[in-house]
Amino acid sequence: MGDVLTADDMEPLARGAALLGAGGGGDPYIGALMARRALQAQGPVDIVSVEDVPDDAVVFPVAMMGAPTVMVEKLPSIQQVTAAVDALAGHLDRTPTHVACIEAGGVNSTIPIVAAAALGLPLVDGDGMGRAFPELQMALPALSGVMVSPLAISDDKGNIGILETVSNIWAERLARTATVEMGCSSIVSLFAMSGTQVRECFVPATLSGCVRLGRSIERARTFESDMSPVATVLEQMSAQLLITGKVVDIVRRTVSGFARGEARVEGAGDISDGPLILHFQNEHLIAQRGNRILATTPDLILVVDKDTGEPITTEALRFGHRVAVLAASAHPRWHTPDAIKLVGPKYFGYDTDPVTATRPKNQEMS
Amino acid sequence: MGDVLTADDMEPLARGAALLGAGGGGDPYIGALMARRALQAQGPVDIVSVEDVPDDAVVFPVAMMGAPTVMVEKLPSIQQVTAAVDALAGHLDRTPTHVACIEAGGVNSTIPIVAAAALGLPLVDGDGMGRAFPELQMALPALSGVMVSPLAISDDKGNIGILETVSNIWAERLARTATVEMGCSSIVSLFAMSGTQVRECFVPATLSGCVRLGRSIERARTFESDMSPVATVLEQMSAQLLITGKVVDIVRRTVSGFARGEARVEGAGDISDGPLILHFQNEHLIAQRGNRILATTPDLILVVDKDTGEPITTEALRFGHRVAVLAASAHPRWHTPDAIKLVGPKYFGYDTDPVTATRPKNQEMS
Repeated sequence: MGDVLTADDMEPLARGAALLGAGGGGDPYIGALMARRALQAQGPVDIVSVEDVPDDAVVFPVAMMGAPTVMVEKLPSIQQVTAAVDALAGHLDRTPTHVACIEAGGVNSTIPIVAAAALGLPLVDGDGMGRAFPELQMALPALSGVMVSPLAISDDKGNIGILETVSNIWAERLARTATVEMGCSSIVSLFAMSGTQVRECFVPATLSGCVRLGRSIERARTFESDMSPVATVLEQMSAQLLITGKVVDIVRRTVSGFARGEARVEGAGDISDGPLILHFQNEHLIAQRGNRILATTPDLILVVDKDTGEPITTEALRFGHRVAVLAASAHPRWHTPDAIKLVGPKYFGYDTDPVTATRPKNQEMS
Repeated sequence: MGDVLTADDMEPLARGAALLGAGGGGDPYIGALMARRALQAQGPVDIVSVEDVPDDAVVFPVAMMGAPTVMVEKLPSIQQVTAAVDALAGHLDRTPTHVACIEAGGVNSTIPIVAAAALGLPLVDGDGMGRAFPELQMALPALSGVMVSPLAISDDKGNIGILETVSNIWAERLARTATVEMGCSSIVSLFAMSGTQVRECFVPATLSGCVRLGRSIERARTFESDMSPVATVLEQMSAQLLITGKVVDIVRRTVSGFARGEARVEGAGDISDGPLILHFQNEHLIAQRGNRILATTPDLILVVDKDTGEPITTEALRFGHRVAVLAASAHPRWHTPDAIKLVGPKYFGYDTDPVTATRPKNQEMS
């Protein structure tokens, strides 16, 4: 990859973004198909590093909102994606100079590529989370005082909404109920910001990082590789292995537009500790074993295929899956007290302080 | 009343509007208090007859949306009312020249007066229904092809939304879910239209008519009057008396932002026919006695105090109330086939054709 993203980058990018998605963000392969088609039709999209975005740039992030369980069955059209950006531009009476990702994880890594290709705009190489989170206000720009709204929302029927809210929580509440009424998925353009603000609050280089990560996993699957795909993920994400085992139970329900549930993974080796339990709301939020909490939001809890290292989203988890469960540190800003209030375990209703998975010395993975 | 509405007009207007409200539209006395305060602060509001609105006028109707049960407990601020009009003006980049009522029934007869007073704009003497109906698309402009959206919505917190929908039903659905999330009441500005369109689809002179009707009832309560208040309503609305009796049962529930329920009225005289049953969803929709349907939407079914002729809204109906139940014809356009599809009994889930209450000859009321 140079300074452009091409159709061929979409598969590795989707794989890397599925890892950053921490189980949520929707199946990025679906989004990658869409982005691939847009790139084939419109040509490559220029990507601009966070440092190179001009101070006075007008940057419009764009994302899909809704339950991943529905998002994978109801792909937006290119027109629906551009409609949200155009509506925000019309409302603000500003022409965007750049499109951006608000979350690099999952399908929202590729939705902005569709917008950039269709609108002929460059894309910022970075995002507002460095992972995926389930609610609109859960983004680093919010911690820097950039407001979620004005927000534009579009649906698959052609309906458009604009919100100007008194707080980020109200933007989330009103956009969420609209999304549910629209059929549990929508496209939103929000957090409009300047280049200066992008530099202040974006996680840099996450899109190019996802492509690299995806390509490394691909290489690790070949005969020539002396490192397994899971070991590659562990190394490149500085992650910790929580368990290797089999999915023995999975419960999911779509509640208020979210995919919530729990999964149990039974260890392949010593099972005296009992199964590992994953709690998720779109994303994996808590990993525990017996009474011991092993890792929590804001850190990334990821489930990958034991053999291929392929990331598995919460809605794709199935009984019998042989998986490795990993934990990786979130961007350091997610560990500040303000951030913990916004996305820590207590916000999601779990009575625990955040637990950071620490990588043991000489952790080995064959 | 001359060509202006003053604070002193508010009480009779509210009484007349409660009659046109057909049980719904919220308690207009609450709205009248608010309008009275606005008129006292800002001076009288000019009212312009439908014929005198210039062809190229920019007319913005404004209304309260939500369950009347909630609306009576949560009065909007003047700022909330003007916020919806201002948001629509900003979105359309048009400055309104007139404010208008979309429904003359209930609180929505006075909300536009608040807007007109606060914004210093004239008010159209007429409305888009000639009564009250529970859903946004149930207005005569919709039958003439004027769209509900662009629509602006405001809440008591200061949140603002704009909707551009593909159909009137989608405007209703999305504004309704937003209203529910906003706490079951909101202010909407919608059906923006030209003076030419106002003339094509408004029911003329309903506001001045409400004031006259309210004043007549007041006069009928005095010793000098030789006609009872109820007889006055019957005459002035060309209405039919369905029953005089006592409310013996009332059930109401707030469902999806609507106040739904049933009331039973037991006749004072011959009770062999059994009680009269009123079915309502914000407004009274069906009056039946035994198996016989006496009157249905789109005609107006009204409940008034037996002695004072004071209209009683569905949320104010109480066990033991001595009442007269009346039926009056809706504006003739509500009886066209398109209108029956929009607001007939079947739309509301009742398996009956519309029944028009006919006024018997020499109907007497002491």
